Amino acid sequence: MKSGGKVPGQPGALSQLVDVLKRLPGIGQKSAQRLALYFLKMKEEDVQRFAQAIVNVKKKISHCRDCHNISENNLCRICSDPRRDRSKIVVVQDVNVLYTIEKTGDYKGLYHVLQGVLSPLDGVGPGEFQVDDFVRRLGSGEVKEVIIATNPNIEGEATAIFLSKYVREAGIKASRIAYGIPVGLDLDYADEVTLIKALEGRREF
Amino acid sequence: MKSGGKVPGQPGALSQLVDVLKRLPGIGQKSAQRLALYFLKMKEEDVQRFAQAIVNVKKKISHCRDCHNISENNLCRICSDPRRDRSKIVVVQDVNVLYTIEKTGDYKGLYHVLQGVLSPLDGVGPGEFQVDDFVRRLGSGEVKEVIIATNPNIEGEATAIFLSKYVREAGIKASRIAYGIPVGLDLDYADEVTLIKALEGRREF
Repeated sequence: MKSGGKVPGQPGALSQLVDVLKRLPGIGQKSAQRLALYFLKMKEEDVQRFAQAIVNVKKKISHCRDCHNISENNLCRICSDPRRDRSKIVVVQDVNVLYTIEKTGDYKGLYHVLQGVLSPLDGVGPGEFQVDDFVRRLGSGEVKEVIIATNPNIEGEATAIFLSKYVREAGIKASRIAYGIPVGLDLDYADEVTLIKALEGRREF
Repeated sequence: MKSGGKVPGQPGALSQLVDVLKRLPGIGQKSAQRLALYFLKMKEEDVQRFAQAIVNVKKKISHCRDCHNISENNLCRICSDPRRDRSKIVVVQDVNVLYTIEKTGDYKGLYHVLQGVLSPLDGVGPGEFQVDDFVRRLGSGEVKEVIIATNPNIEGEATAIFLSKYVREAGIKASRIAYGIPVGLDLDYADEVTLIKALEGRREF
């Protein structure tokens, strides 16, 4: 029995929906099948509203001119907020990370959302990586510190080092978010690399 | 930090999409957020195709006149297939169960898809439960056995007992799918109720 396989004799419109749903991140054959049947049970007007919400997000949202955060306007709400500290920029590789930081409510500076990371294996070498907009912001005179918060993996690390050169060349302080033990994690469960990084990054009381 | 909470300053169209995505089964705030940003990254034409697939499934698919399986035609592919054994009906409470059985390729009879189950707590008592179509099929003279494959919980069990009365009244053999140990499961991990049912349902070699 192929529990994840295609269903014989399933209506074409349903198979087509299962196929497009399967392409979404985190959704496999079984979830796609269940979601498709759920849409079938939904009221006609709810289905229309759902489809419209997806189309709208694409139509109405573009990117902030300055930081590339997603935005319905030319400038995003963060860049256009006069209360934000314009001397600090946190560089993230994904809008999701920006949102996670925003939810803490702790950070009051600006952001820069990268369009990707350096990943020579995927054909994104230093030549392909777009830094023009980033470098232009460094030259504005307002920025005093750039905190690079790319992912703690090879690509994120390479991107951080790559970008930090431009930051230092512009005479601006460049820093990297701290590696360490996640809050609440028992040290027994920490992996060795993180533990070494946490020791290296120790801070005096 | 509210890791699952709303994001301040998120564009309205994005929040709206996150809200509708959250209503889907198995999708929480975090997955909804990730999916919404994924749609934003998709190409315009792919987004249109996706939205269309959802609307189509609702427009093109209705229910089989005989067994209530979902179908693009008046009769579903199973009911209209002359090679199927018309003497057997498996009663399921969900099209998903029908598909799971179909994928095994073992069962060659017909189905009956219930519109729900008896659930007095949700206001579906014996008086509200639609059985007319089911009883009509029992009277066709073709059916020799009805195998009731509702879920092994209180509602499914009550529905099975309720339906079995109509089946027996029509002079037709009524059976219930076997309870037992799932194939491959170590007996140590089986729950007690299942174990008792498996003992009760023992079969001679």
